[in-house]
Amino acid sequence: MKTKPYYAVIFTTTRTEGDHGYEEMAQRMDELAKKQPGYIGVESARSELGITVSYWENLEAISKWKENSEHTLAREMGREKWYSWYKLRVCLVEREYEFTK
Amino acid sequence: MKTKPYYAVIFTTTRTEGDHGYEEMAQRMDELAKKQPGYIGVESARSELGITVSYWENLEAISKWKENSEHTLAREMGREKWYSWYKLRVCLVEREYEFTK
Repeated sequence: MKTKPYYAVIFTTTRTEGDHGYEEMAQRMDELAKKQPGYIGVESARSELGITVSYWENLEAISKWKENSEHTLAREMGREKWYSWYKLRVCLVEREYEFTK
Repeated sequence: MKTKPYYAVIFTTTRTEGDHGYEEMAQRMDELAKKQPGYIGVESARSELGITVSYWENLEAISKWKENSEHTLAREMGREKWYSWYKLRVCLVEREYEFTK
């Protein structure tokens, strides 16, 4: 099925030990992201790796979210305290399929 | 950082109750995918949602993997037994950033 193109930001992480305010920040970032123009949704899971995929209408929406001051601070804290490694990929969603039982 | 474009297949799922041979199949599919031409890697996590992102050199590699007969059978089993919902997105990775502490 061909859909209107939109963007996915795949954020894959490995955490450091302990919380250090991480859960509170993660919840706050979820709330803030939802209010951004062009936000579509988010999907998250964590096992050994954490994977959070956020979906956006266009690249401008992703840039604006990146420039958000609280989000900028959270990213700094992330590098200082919460993540031992991460990889962030900005992707154009070209096709999608959905199945519901 | 601009990298050579490649593809991400984001497979987001909700499981049915019980295993029903799922773990064995998941492991087998990991092994098979690794042998496919154009395979780059995979990242997986599961909480309430499962998210598996596989990375591929191009769309042809994704098509060939889709056509693999064992994989086709596994997808049928997935719809019959293992998943109550899934969404699959084929995405062009346009940019990426990596952080290591």
